[in-house]
Amino acid sequence: MPDRVTLAFSGGLDTTYCAVWLREQGWLVDALTVQTGGFDADELALIERRAREAGVATFQVVDGRQRLYDDILRTLIAANALRGGVYPLCVSAERVVQAALVAAHAQQTGAAAVCHGSTGAGNDQIRFDVALRALAPQLRILTPIRELALSREAETAYLAERGVHIAPRTTRYSVNRGLWGVTIGGGEIHRSDVEIPESAWCLTASPDARPAQPEECTIAFDGGAPVSLDGRSADGVALIEELNERAARHGFGRGVHVGDTIIGIKGRIAFEAPGPLTLITAHRELEKLVLSRGQSFWKGVLGELYAAQVHEARFFDPLTRDLAAFLHSTQQRVCGEVRVRWHQGTMQVASVQSPYSALGASSTYGEASQLWSGEEAAGFAKIYGVGDQLLTAIARRQQVQ
Amino acid sequence: MPDRVTLAFSGGLDTTYCAVWLREQGWLVDALTVQTGGFDADELALIERRAREAGVATFQVVDGRQRLYDDILRTLIAANALRGGVYPLCVSAERVVQAALVAAHAQQTGAAAVCHGSTGAGNDQIRFDVALRALAPQLRILTPIRELALSREAETAYLAERGVHIAPRTTRYSVNRGLWGVTIGGGEIHRSDVEIPESAWCLTASPDARPAQPEECTIAFDGGAPVSLDGRSADGVALIEELNERAARHGFGRGVHVGDTIIGIKGRIAFEAPGPLTLITAHRELEKLVLSRGQSFWKGVLGELYAAQVHEARFFDPLTRDLAAFLHSTQQRVCGEVRVRWHQGTMQVASVQSPYSALGASSTYGEASQLWSGEEAAGFAKIYGVGDQLLTAIARRQQVQ
Amino acid sequence: MPDRVTLAFSGGLDTTYCAVWLREQGWLVDALTVQTGGFDADELALIERRAREAGVATFQVVDGRQRLYDDILRTLIAANALRGGVYPLCVSAERVVQAALVAAHAQQTGAAAVCHGSTGAGNDQIRFDVALRALAPQLRILTPIRELALSREAETAYLAERGVHIAPRTTRYSVNRGLWGVTIGGGEIHRSDVEIPESAWCLTASPDARPAQPEECTIAFDGGAPVSLDGRSADGVALIEELNERAARHGFGRGVHVGDTIIGIKGRIAFEAPGPLTLITAHRELEKLVLSRGQSFWKGVLGELYAAQVHEARFFDPLTRDLAAFLHSTQQRVCGEVRVRWHQGTMQVASVQSPYSALGASSTYGEASQLWSGEEAAGFAKIYGVGDQLLTAIARRQQVQ
Amino acid sequence: MPDRVTLAFSGGLDTTYCAVWLREQGWLVDALTVQTGGFDADELALIERRAREAGVATFQVVDGRQRLYDDILRTLIAANALRGGVYPLCVSAERVVQAALVAAHAQQTGAAAVCHGSTGAGNDQIRFDVALRALAPQLRILTPIRELALSREAETAYLAERGVHIAPRTTRYSVNRGLWGVTIGGGEIHRSDVEIPESAWCLTASPDARPAQPEECTIAFDGGAPVSLDGRSADGVALIEELNERAARHGFGRGVHVGDTIIGIKGRIAFEAPGPLTLITAHRELEKLVLSRGQSFWKGVLGELYAAQVHEARFFDPLTRDLAAFLHSTQQRVCGEVRVRWHQGTMQVASVQSPYSALGASSTYGEASQLWSGEEAAGFAKIYGVGDQLLTAIARRQQVQ
Repeated sequence: MPDRVTLAFSGGLDTTYCAVWLREQGWLVDALTVQTGGFDADELALIERRAREAGVATFQVVDGRQRLYDDILRTLIAANALRGGVYPLCVSAERVVQAALVAAHAQQTGAAAVCHGSTGAGNDQIRFDVALRALAPQLRILTPIRELALSREAETAYLAERGVHIAPRTTRYSVNRGLWGVTIGGGEIHRSDVEIPESAWCLTASPDARPAQPEECTIAFDGGAPVSLDGRSADGVALIEELNERAARHGFGRGVHVGDTIIGIKGRIAFEAPGPLTLITAHRELEKLVLSRGQSFWKGVLGELYAAQVHEARFFDPLTRDLAAFLHSTQQRVCGEVRVRWHQGTMQVASVQSPYSALGASSTYGEASQLWSGEEAAGFAKIYGVGDQLLTAIARRQQVQ
Repeated sequence: MPDRVTLAFSGGLDTTYCAVWLREQGWLVDALTVQTGGFDADELALIERRAREAGVATFQVVDGRQRLYDDILRTLIAANALRGGVYPLCVSAERVVQAALVAAHAQQTGAAAVCHGSTGAGNDQIRFDVALRALAPQLRILTPIRELALSREAETAYLAERGVHIAPRTTRYSVNRGLWGVTIGGGEIHRSDVEIPESAWCLTASPDARPAQPEECTIAFDGGAPVSLDGRSADGVALIEELNERAARHGFGRGVHVGDTIIGIKGRIAFEAPGPLTLITAHRELEKLVLSRGQSFWKGVLGELYAAQVHEARFFDPLTRDLAAFLHSTQQRVCGEVRVRWHQGTMQVASVQSPYSALGASSTYGEASQLWSGEEAAGFAKIYGVGDQLLTAIARRQQVQ
Repeated sequence: MPDRVTLAFSGGLDTTYCAVWLREQGWLVDALTVQTGGFDADELALIERRAREAGVATFQVVDGRQRLYDDILRTLIAANALRGGVYPLCVSAERVVQAALVAAHAQQTGAAAVCHGSTGAGNDQIRFDVALRALAPQLRILTPIRELALSREAETAYLAERGVHIAPRTTRYSVNRGLWGVTIGGGEIHRSDVEIPESAWCLTASPDARPAQPEECTIAFDGGAPVSLDGRSADGVALIEELNERAARHGFGRGVHVGDTIIGIKGRIAFEAPGPLTLITAHRELEKLVLSRGQSFWKGVLGELYAAQVHEARFFDPLTRDLAAFLHSTQQRVCGEVRVRWHQGTMQVASVQSPYSALGASSTYGEASQLWSGEEAAGFAKIYGVGDQLLTAIARRQQVQ
Repeated sequence: MPDRVTLAFSGGLDTTYCAVWLREQGWLVDALTVQTGGFDADELALIERRAREAGVATFQVVDGRQRLYDDILRTLIAANALRGGVYPLCVSAERVVQAALVAAHAQQTGAAAVCHGSTGAGNDQIRFDVALRALAPQLRILTPIRELALSREAETAYLAERGVHIAPRTTRYSVNRGLWGVTIGGGEIHRSDVEIPESAWCLTASPDARPAQPEECTIAFDGGAPVSLDGRSADGVALIEELNERAARHGFGRGVHVGDTIIGIKGRIAFEAPGPLTLITAHRELEKLVLSRGQSFWKGVLGELYAAQVHEARFFDPLTRDLAAFLHSTQQRVCGEVRVRWHQGTMQVASVQSPYSALGASSTYGEASQLWSGEEAAGFAKIYGVGDQLLTAIARRQQVQ
């Protein structure tokens, strides 16, 4: 009896090619589609049909959204994670969960191998390979697309010869959709000297389709995690989905990201992340009311580092868990409500409140000087500068000599 | 003959009070107004008249803009310095230059003391005291407002009794203007649960006064510093002034900053920084084309640290100069052109080009796989994950036992 | 009835002065001596006699060693905390616990104030004041030594007039003993150009009194904490005490620390910390077998930061607890045995073993190349350098043009 | 005419194999030996004889010591670079210089390729490959040892068949000697649970051969760099060589390093670095007199990072140069004299002096309280703790509710 392989299956050209190719190499192919928020019911039906056409032995969809939120998104929110100051890691978080569910599926079915459709050019091959080897080192990893380096045309022709007909893309962009946002790559998007055409965007309303009136929303946080929208409790997944939808209607959440791949080259993508950008901005403004100065500085550094670990396929480095422990420790007092407003492609924080806010207390003390006198402040200022005064005096004395 | 004191003079209520009070204490008062971009000709005339009314011995205006740019702003641009992700240190950079010019003036005139009008509640007292002691430790520092802790009403009455009449503020906000932006504090602005009223803004066009058409501008950078606008060479000061003006017309540059004071309490201000925000955003996007991954991460950390040093009155800590050495070293290849567009309160980067861009090369290599094969990529992915694979395997083995 | 004050009492000249002075100011004085490992039975008896002579209302000794270990030392071990690469924070950790127990005592007795004997020159005043205000802001803080700035002679005379006779110090050094080590200050020790005389040391054997034979000891760690010595289970406090004693017999643990005070000036002390230095060195070597590369680097940074927070009176900054969360998260696999050897003033790590060691596995894999082939290694090396290759190529091309 | 290849030649088994193998593949072999301090005249003669036997077309020795010092060691001293707190990067610094000189030689001779003898198991292959591709991307890189994965026995037999007879190693250790120290690997050294046998050490005197009397030496530093020994000016290379010799006579400089390779596995080596360890310890103690608190902390972080960049083959990352700019900026006031003493395997800093020392001034000010009063200190302590006081008060209030 032939060996089984679990194939991470998206229904696109590359993974359909993999399915057929694996079968012809003598494998029994179990196609697994991990739902991380990118597929609606129609798409899932299309994916299943494609899998059947490709002749897989089994096809299954598994919902990875809750795990994605619990394992990573929750911490990315705590970290205010935006690569390059703008990009909320729409893709990299998903890959860890997809790899984990593929590995688990392979272990349950007694598969001898796993297969993913990554090319040899980008980050995803590294993310899949590293995660799969960390979680299930005994499994072979098959990556025909990377190894064979075929063109899209060659893949299409190969499939057509075998009766699997895949229409050419209607767009020249390659799109990745998920709970944490959509990325759009390819075509002229890789060039920094050309603007993204309106037609490239797929989630957010275009300027002429946006409501004239602004829309407001109150997000409540507890322990750093979003827990309700406009007073209605919601779990993380449902809450992000609602924010994605509402903010997208106002055209909010578009951006362009230029960044470094694990592999050393630079890449450029467009992205749409209405929910993530709303959440992170709201969360960040709430934090400003409650964190200490030292917390703010070091959360910045370590949040950026956590994002880099996830982005660069270091999720299984134990450092990543240590950073999460730090980040979640900082969130104890990140409780309160943030009122945001979307309008014409923008989002603003209208108001922020927290029972732990140090701003109200500060303002009272600061204005009325209830906590210290002018003399005490003068004493503080003097001693605060003693070290620098001493060093500058010594340096001046040496210059004179 | 009485001792001289150099008074940092802004013509406002507090420093006018200082001038009269110092005179009555027997000092010969030299009033010095440092122009850091906050005053137009009318205001300077008003300040001088106020100084004369207060009975100062001498009055002088000194232009600190070039020094402000050379000593600090240039490095803040290199650092992409935005406190809390939003605020470009509109005020703190100025204070260093003001203190330096006041200290220099006092040394030239043989003054025995310097005086500034800071209260005991905020950051500025610390910035002035520390800078003055570092630069001229032999001078006494007089701070009557801090020591006497008078109300505005008491100060006004004191001056009126002596024939100096200062009209009550027409606004409840206190405003600080300068080359690097305007800050607006006081009133309800300190509350995070209330929005800033339109009337509070003083530099940027209100929504109904903004042009319907967008405006574009090309900023060229060399070695990390802006060197021309729309093809016209300009020095840093003139260039920032022009950007402030053009971006303000489109209502761009407004923000709210909640931050920690040196003194341990939190504060909240509104600010308008159309030029600085345009420049820093443009600079940051240009950097993404040319910096290495390691440079991007550590520039982020150390740029934030440089901003904190300036903000927290640590400019004379030698660390600050070491950080500047690092930051400027990173800027060698930050050369190129950034096209920005202002429209209806927003600013976008339309395109970025650099002769040092690693994006074009990357894209070529990445797509055509000219630099490596699929096998090499697979080898890379395998070894890249060896460490994590090993540690997870050991941890799993221990759990089993 | 007079108000009560809790006095942090060590029985030395300064706190005896405080006791008498407070009484004469009309306070009912509760003297509290916190045992943090510095006092043997004879000394405690002397301290109590001194308290009685000074006329305190009550005298009590409270044992703070377990709390010291639980709250701070445990984390300092996890952090491998050595200031300037050498000094294990012998004093600063104690101060937090002393302040906490003094504040608790004052709250239990309904005291209106607390008093400590710090001068205005050093770190301890800051540590006490900050901790007391964080824990019990309603209590007045009395610091007569700081306020009155008396000489030792004046204090001695004041007490003698009131019948409390304190013999002049037999040494010119001021010594602070505790569980985490002894510090020795004063006299010529503050000068960096003079060696510490043999007579200054008080805990460790002098060269001519050290055993000719080395002594070995096996320390077992679990989750980063030491749990047994030579196979005998021991709690942290007892274990540190035994290590202090055994290592001191061999003259190990001496050092000199030059560091920055909170107040901005530099100080120099001698110290003896035989147990802490043995523990930290052993712990550090064990960690090297089990931590990932990223963990090692960032534990270094954040361990140093944790030590700085404790040293600089930032224990109550919530950041300190976040850092502890990070540090303890890194310790999960820090389990194993370290064999150390003391001899003639030195300590060596003879062997290290851990069930989580990645060294054995690495060595097997590395030598036998079981995990990768030469081709894969070549592929890794190529892609690992792609980024730097690209940037140097671009820079070279630009130079040529 | 056959193509030329420049072979990095050490005269050992691996590179001799490379020489013969390359010749048989039709290459014209130019053997280049880079002297980085590891070879004496006898060894160089042996290396040349070996090269001739292997039939190379040309053989040349080039002295890389000055470049090694200028490009890297100077900065490693400024960084106090010790991996894992103990190991001074004896090997990795050399590799950059060896690669650079090999690449330069190949470019001068018009070679089509370079060859190095690294295996596929360790760091050196990565260091060579990355450096060679950064410096001379047009050259092919040949690594027969890595590709063919031969045993030492197979290599020896291959050479013997061709008349090149290489005696088996008399020791089971593999040794790398250079200006910055000696590393010893192999055999039982990779095991953390076994001690290094006395016979393994090759540079430092064994316990029974060490002088009974201590030896002292005064090292003068200027701008962070060592400039004289015992009053005699010396350039960096000569000074390190003298320190290596003198300290080794006293048996000082031995250590064991457990660290992470670039490739993800852990390794363990013994090392002897008498000069580097003396220099770095002396330099570090001098720095403590003159650096500000902030400089000390961040120099620690960035010095560690610089060392990691060199160790992990990131020398050509522009970040490495930015870090060097930071580190050298911190060294301006690192001037003065350090007296060290070697004795019986140990080294102590006996005294330190600097014209920029902030310790003397601090001590004067601190004791005599010339810079501030007790009231000012109390004011400082109060305000220094305001932030933590506020946050703890708010947290307490929330818990009560």
